[in-house]
Parts: sequence; C-alpha cells; structure tokens
Amino acid sequence: MRKYFLLTPGPTPIPPEVAQKESLPILHHRTSEFGEYFIQVIEGLKYVFQTQKNDIFIITSSGTGAMESAIVNLLNKDDEVIVASCGVFGNRWEKICNTYGVKVIKIESEWGKSVNPEEIEQKLKENPQVKCVFTTHTETSTGVVNDLKSIGNIVSKTDAILVIDAISGLCGQELKTDDWKLDVVVSGSQKGLMCAPGLSFVCVGAKAMPLVEKATLPRFYFDWREMKKSISKKQTPYTPAVSLIVSLAESINIIKKEGLENIFARTEKLAKVCRAGLKGLNLELFADESCACNVLTSAKVPENIDGKKIVKMLREEFGISIAGGQGKLEGKIIRVAHMGYIDQFDLFVAFTGLETVLSRMGHKLEFGNSIEKAQSVLNS
Amino acid sequence: MRKYFLLTPGPTPIPPEVAQKESLPILHHRTSEFGEYFIQVIEGLKYVFQTQKNDIFIITSSGTGAMESAIVNLLNKDDEVIVASCGVFGNRWEKICNTYGVKVIKIESEWGKSVNPEEIEQKLKENPQVKCVFTTHTETSTGVVNDLKSIGNIVSKTDAILVIDAISGLCGQELKTDDWKLDVVVSGSQKGLMCAPGLSFVCVGAKAMPLVEKATLPRFYFDWREMKKSISKKQTPYTPAVSLIVSLAESINIIKKEGLENIFARTEKLAKVCRAGLKGLNLELFADESCACNVLTSAKVPENIDGKKIVKMLREEFGISIAGGQGKLEGKIIRVAHMGYIDQFDLFVAFTGLETVLSRMGHKLEFGNSIEKAQSVLNS
Repeated sequence: MRKYFLLTPGPTPIPPEVAQKESLPILHHRTSEFGEYFIQVIEGLKYVFQTQKNDIFIITSSGTGAMESAIVNLLNKDDEVIVASCGVFGNRWEKICNTYGVKVIKIESEWGKSVNPEEIEQKLKENPQVKCVFTTHTETSTGVVNDLKSIGNIVSKTDAILVIDAISGLCGQELKTDDWKLDVVVSGSQKGLMCAPGLSFVCVGAKAMPLVEKATLPRFYFDWREMKKSISKKQTPYTPAVSLIVSLAESINIIKKEGLENIFARTEKLAKVCRAGLKGLNLELFADESCACNVLTSAKVPENIDGKKIVKMLREEFGISIAGGQGKLEGKIIRVAHMGYIDQFDLFVAFTGLETVLSRMGHKLEFGNSIEKAQSVLNS
Repeated sequence: MRKYFLLTPGPTPIPPEVAQKESLPILHHRTSEFGEYFIQVIEGLKYVFQTQKNDIFIITSSGTGAMESAIVNLLNKDDEVIVASCGVFGNRWEKICNTYGVKVIKIESEWGKSVNPEEIEQKLKENPQVKCVFTTHTETSTGVVNDLKSIGNIVSKTDAILVIDAISGLCGQELKTDDWKLDVVVSGSQKGLMCAPGLSFVCVGAKAMPLVEKATLPRFYFDWREMKKSISKKQTPYTPAVSLIVSLAESINIIKKEGLENIFARTEKLAKVCRAGLKGLNLELFADESCACNVLTSAKVPENIDGKKIVKMLREEFGISIAGGQGKLEGKIIRVAHMGYIDQFDLFVAFTGLETVLSRMGHKLEFGNSIEKAQSVLNS
C-alpha cells in the first residue's frame, strides 16, 4: 500500500471531478459540441487572467511552447529586448531569445530576491529601441514573486511590450492583466488551474497585436495569426488536446465557484503556514520574505546535507513529491508547492515526512514542532 | 438520450481502459515512477514504428508540431527539398517549408491518386542537391496510401533524408521504418494509437542525425538535441502531457497483445467492408482503388447534394461524426475512418445513418443494401 502526495510546483494534483472529465469519450474538434467547451474555456480563462478584451490562445504544448510563441510572434532577428530575471525561468526567456538571434539586455537579480522595477525603468530609458520586456510572475526556482503592477506601470509608458511568464503563478497569486497593463501573459494548465499538463495559454492585448503582424521570425505551429483566425470558428488551427480542454472547463467551474479573490487569500494563508512549518523544522527560508511568493516556499538545506537526498528519500519512502533546487541551487534548497489543489493537510504530510527524513540525516529538530508552528498560523 | 459515434480520421475513439488511465493521479515528470512509463512508451513506440535502433522523441503537441520539428531540426534556410504530395497533409509539408525559407521542389499527384515513386527518383536525379524528401504515409484528405517501400528504396540510394508524415497511418497500415529505410517518421497519439490528442512522436534514424547537429534553423521547444539528451534520464526537456503518456502505455499494451500484423489485417478487412458499404449506398468511391488506404475510405458526394450538409445532419441528428472534404474537396466528398478503436459495428452505424440522411436528401438507395454488401465482404 502506497499513497502518493504531490507538492511540486507543477504538475500539481488534480481534483477527482476534473480528472474524471479527461476520461470522457473524445469529441471531434471541429464540432459544435467541442466549440461549446472551447468558448467556455476561453471565457473562463479571461476571468482567470482578469482581462476583458484581450485575445486568449490555447496551445497544445508545455508552457515553454507558449513562451517561445511570444518571442516568434512579436520579434524580428536582431531586435533588442530586456529580460529581467531572478531565476531559472527568467533565464529561459533569454535562452529562447538567443536561439532566435534576438539581442538581450539582461537584468539579473540575486536569486531569492525579486526583479527591481527601477532597474527596468533605467534600462528602458537608456535603450529606447527595446521592443519587449520579458519577466516572470512567480519565479518558482527560488520562490519569489515580482512586482508586476509597478513593472506594468513603467513599461506601459514606453513603446515596449511587456511579456509575462505566469505559468506557475496564474490563479495562485494576484495577477491583473488589464489593470496592471500586462501586454502578453503566458501560462499553463498544470499549476493553479488544477489540470493535467499539456495545454498552454497566451493572453494578448491590443498594444501587442500590431507587432504580431509585423514580426518576421518564422513560425507555423505557434503562429498566433492562425490561432486568432480559428477562434471565430470556436476552434484551434490543429487538433488540440481535446480531453484536457474538456477537463479544464470543469476546473474553471470550480475556480469560478470559489472566486479568484478567495483563492488568492487561501494561497496567501497557505504560504504563511508553509513558511512557519519549514521554520519549525529548523530550516532557514531561501527567498527573501519581503518578496516570497504565495504558490510555493523554498528553504535552504542544512549544511552537510544533500538536498537531492531529501527529495529522493521523501519520494521513495513516503510517496511525497516535493522539488529540489534547479540550476545553481541544485542540492541546496527544497521547494514545497501550495498552489491549486494542495491544502493545509497536504502541507502537514510534507512537514511530517520532512521531520522524519531530516532527523534521520542528523538535522536537529523537534517532532511536531513544524505542525505546532503551522497550526498557530493557520488558526490565528 | 444521445449516443455519440466517432468515425473521423482523428481524433478517434479511445478504449475505456485507456481513457480511464488519463484520470489517474498525476505523477511528477522527474520521478522514477514516471520514468518507468516513459521507457515503456518509448519501447512500445519502437515496436509500433518497427524500428530497432532509431531514436523516438515524444513531444507534447499536435502532429503538426512534430512535422515542424522535422523541418527545423534537419534544414537550413535556402536548402532545397522535394515535397511529394497527394493532398492536404502533403501540402502541409510545403507550407511549413515556405515558412522557414526552405525551397520546395513540388511533386503533386492528382487528388485521389498516390505519389508516383518514379517521379521522386527522376527529381532526385535532376536535383542531387536536395537534402530531404517529404511525403505522407496515408493521406487522409483523400483516402490514399503511398508506396513508402518503393520511395524508401529510391531515396536510400541518395544522400537525401526521407521524412514521412505517418500521423494517421501508424498502427493502421503497414509501415516498416527500418526495412523500408524511412529516415524520419512523425506520428500522433489520436489515430491508430487509440489515445487522446496531445502527443506527437518522431522516429529518427542514423542517417538523419548528422543533419540535426548541423541544421541552423532556429528551434527551442522542438529541439531534438534537447530531447535526445533527456531520454537518458527517462524524461522530456519540458513538462510533458503526463496523463496522456500514462494512458498511451495502456494503449500500447493492448496493441502488443493483438499484434501489429493482426491489427493491419483487421484494418484491411474493415477497409474492404467500408468500400462495399459505401458502394451499397450508391456512392462512388473517391480514391483510386489501386491505392486506397486502409485507415479511412472516401466517397464522392452525389451531384446536387452538399456534402457538408450530410456531415452536419449525421452529427446533429444522430451523433455520428464522419468527416467531409478538405481544401478543394470541401463539400464534395465524405470520409469514414476505420482505424484504431473503430470496428465493423461502428461502420454499420455510419452506413445506416447515411442511408437515412442520403435518402432524405433525395439520393436513390435501397435501405439495408449497404449492410448486405458490407456483411458479404465481412463474412467472406
């Protein structure tokens, strides 16, 4: 007998009523029956992205595909852009730009801290030719949230297009596409949206659309122009992941019933609970508390302990999946997610599993202390 | 009360035991549990592609994404290629090539007929600089199968790489990657493999790999080099459609149990049954019978009848989904699939539904005649 507990920052667990929809008989994607689901999902995503009039494109791909789609639809070779990064996923914008010969002006924050909006303002002043500014909503490699409201305010005063990777943050941490003037926001199905991985989304505003017409980078599968044309027929240009779209419609129903504001409040509370619990394990938090995000929490691995072993033992012995560090943080931090369909009891499972694993590895802690600290916050 | 019957050439119906697997709790894609499914699927796909040593890459995308991946991983701008097309999907190769500035030497057969291997041989002689030859296994827009054995034999004697779109034909119509010397074969999850749409596959042989290293077209999400690196870790570079991969493992079990040869024999029989049934409706077949494929059958719509109305009425009144014509055949043909999890009784549903619809539209036919003709073939 083995139970599994998924507390990774994507994929995240799926509510049974959503998962069940994936098993329904497949609909043909050029029928009115599918069209109804398609429109329901598009409208639901507009609610989640908090936009009234932006276009929403649904792509069958990982989130990375949606990120690439933003670059090929907005830019030309040798265009200059700003990438404001504070971790692995911010750096991915730079990597994709490099692939396409787009010139990157990099702003890099210390990992664990957020991007400084003033630096973006400064760089935009120095480089008025910059066409796009790329950054990240919640940077899950470190556990940080960026101040998109301020960044949106700054970029909107220039000709540049602001492009946000909100793959992990959407529906877990406040993001107001229209109010914050976010021109392009990309996301995925397997995080706050509580669905299986396989779908990605792009939310494109009016300031960005003229660039799409003029962009000369090559694109076929990721071509937003074809996606826009298909929407009027309630379709996608190519056969989409039908079963995932049908399950997403159910997930959006659940999200609407709870309401975005309630979800954000719940996730914020869980973040506080998680920070208290990890501290209760005598761990030091990794992300600066001033900018720690609400969708996952990172903590430093004690010296002389290999973080990869913590993750491995938790999974192999107890079926608990949390994440380790990525890139230069490999083995040095652990990351516990609390987005989507993860609740306080999932966190308690992770804490108690960690208690056992860490104490076995010689880390000093008091059994039950993480729960005591977490419960105090939860019940305050 | 409404039953649905899916007889479209993709997506196709899914066996319940496969669909059910989609609903299982999500596994994290960087775990050994997922790795086991991943390897099982890769090995299963090698069986289905009939290859011993080629690489298999799994992409989260529609089949079109896999087609695009072949072009960006093999070619440079201004390279010359041959596209041998006999329908909409053959033409898609040309469209993607045009997008990337790849120069296309086009061989186009009359729709309803197959590609002529001798024309490919001739064009290759005249154009020894050609780097790739692109063609289609079963062209579902017309219902034709191409002679890949002969084409493979011809192309293998040159330096050119043969690239096959087997999205609709794989696992429904004989395709021997190794024996027929097919250098690159792309396919998808939602046809003969009896899974939901959302996964595509690429099977790459040794002759093609050096081009992948040298190709200069830009690629990130579709980069085969990253996919190849990840395979050793039993992973994909980016979060894949986990639930679809888990369900594909189940589908591959079913396929292995029946055996490819038995599947091909069954599909061939169903093709004969479908041709007999459609003729029994007083319809004229569209594809030349000498090259009609086994995965779907096309028939001409009688004069004075709008083919789109047949498809619409069948779906709206009886829940039966068949396909109409695409491109220049819009409204002029109907297409009935018999691949994957479609059996003779599904075909009988389509025939009897068509009887009703066609007779209402004033087409002369005898009720029961299509079944009589189909049953004669089935029981012969």
